Amino acid sequence: QPRNPGSPRSAGVVVIGNEILSGKVQDVNARHICKELHSRGFKVTSVEVVPDEIEVIAASVRRASEACDLVFTTGGLGPTHDDLTMEGVAAAFGCPLVEDPRFLRMLGEHLGKGTSVTDEGLAAASTAQHKMAQVPEGSKMEWPPDGNPWPLVSMRNVYIFVGMPSEFQSMFARAAADGRFDGALQWTTAALQLDAAEVDILTSLSDTVKTFPKVTIGSYPSEDHREMSSSAWCCRLTITFESLDAEQVVKARQHLVDSLPANLLKPEAAEAADTEVA
Amino acid sequence: QPRNPGSPRSAGVVVIGNEILSGKVQDVNARHICKELHSRGFKVTSVEVVPDEIEVIAASVRRASEACDLVFTTGGLGPTHDDLTMEGVAAAFGCPLVEDPRFLRMLGEHLGKGTSVTDEGLAAASTAQHKMAQVPEGSKMEWPPDGNPWPLVSMRNVYIFVGMPSEFQSMFARAAADGRFDGALQWTTAALQLDAAEVDILTSLSDTVKTFPKVTIGSYPSEDHREMSSSAWCCRLTITFESLDAEQVVKARQHLVDSLPANLLKPEAAEAADTEVA
Repeated sequence: QPRNPGSPRSAGVVVIGNEILSGKVQDVNARHICKELHSRGFKVTSVEVVPDEIEVIAASVRRASEACDLVFTTGGLGPTHDDLTMEGVAAAFGCPLVEDPRFLRMLGEHLGKGTSVTDEGLAAASTAQHKMAQVPEGSKMEWPPDGNPWPLVSMRNVYIFVGMPSEFQSMFARAAADGRFDGALQWTTAALQLDAAEVDILTSLSDTVKTFPKVTIGSYPSEDHREMSSSAWCCRLTITFESLDAEQVVKARQHLVDSLPANLLKPEAAEAADTEVA
Repeated sequence: QPRNPGSPRSAGVVVIGNEILSGKVQDVNARHICKELHSRGFKVTSVEVVPDEIEVIAASVRRASEACDLVFTTGGLGPTHDDLTMEGVAAAFGCPLVEDPRFLRMLGEHLGKGTSVTDEGLAAASTAQHKMAQVPEGSKMEWPPDGNPWPLVSMRNVYIFVGMPSEFQSMFARAAADGRFDGALQWTTAALQLDAAEVDILTSLSDTVKTFPKVTIGSYPSEDHREMSSSAWCCRLTITFESLDAEQVVKARQHLVDSLPANLLKPEAAEAADTEVA
């Protein structure tokens, strides 16, 4: 249930990793979460990228946990010194880390494979397993029914996900499969593509915004006309309409269509249906 | 000059736009800023994505402005109702918006081109120009010498950039050309690629981390071996070394190389030079 009845459930995303802040790596997980949650009726209210520092992670997680219905962290799990997310989440809630025995056992079976059988190698593997099996006290551990060794770990309203995009995406899909990330309310979205500059439609657009206060209307000039080159139509502007009230979306879009000069409209734009913006 | 002498200059990034939070669009500007600033010796300490809401923009900008030497905003400029960055930055500092006469004149020359010559079209163009020429009182306006009509607008330590990636990148390059975004200190970076799991090198890595406290060491398992398919070498792990002290970077990397089993090392890895991680 959302914190504010009548509003969509809200979510915050905390991306953890020095490699994102130094620009070495392009984050793609935040966009994946945003897209997935939005399609399920959530409103993502913030995304924050933070470095591998316990206190900074803790402050960001605490702030998001207080402000949002759900929080998702990504990155900072693993056996090395720069994997500090579990510590950060524990610090956010002022609780200690504890070792989860089942997690330790599963890691032993998983991490043991293919590693050294020298005494030093075995000791290192054991150290890694003990580090990775530490979770904030009071965490919920959920074990995949498909034999995947990685549990879904959550602490209060905070879900703790890995950073590697392919693993992150399958973890998210597994967790979402039971509908836990579905909002009771769903967005209805529509789009309108125009061969116009924003300034050409400003009066009609302002009027539509004022007439439909329950509809969130966005205006996005497209950067690159070449993206549209596969189509005969050259679209310079996309207007998006979004609301929990489906009827209002249809009406707002039609209101704008009706008030625009005909030469700005794509032939099929007068029809009610349109695809979501990519 | 950095706020903390002996430390690198710090920066915060505020990305503004509902389209990012709903997952419709992948943000690429934050990564561009992070990469550019990092290469100039900055430490980017946070990236935050916020919706098109004045108070949320204001809170994020205010927090970043207090915490960092420089702040960069991207997105939310333009003539439509959802372009609220100027209002947000003004609210962050509790100052009003004022119209800049030169900006208004340049917009008139620029936005007037190709728009309608009907009375309604001219009125809309005028409204758009007046909206876009509003900047926070006390802003610094810098006019490009190359005739580009868009000024670089900054308010105290906050630079206000457009959202469209190609325009953003050329605006950033223009601003950076005079060295204003250069740190007095520069990072030295090195990388080491290994065909190993993190657990295989844990003991050596921990020892290197402890021995070189002035070097930031990162450990990044690669997700996709196919990325490396053009090379005969299959790299499963990248270790990065970074410091303001160049000598320490070289020593830390060599320390790790010397302590690893030879079979984990790429043939050229024993040499001192290595490329920066992509």
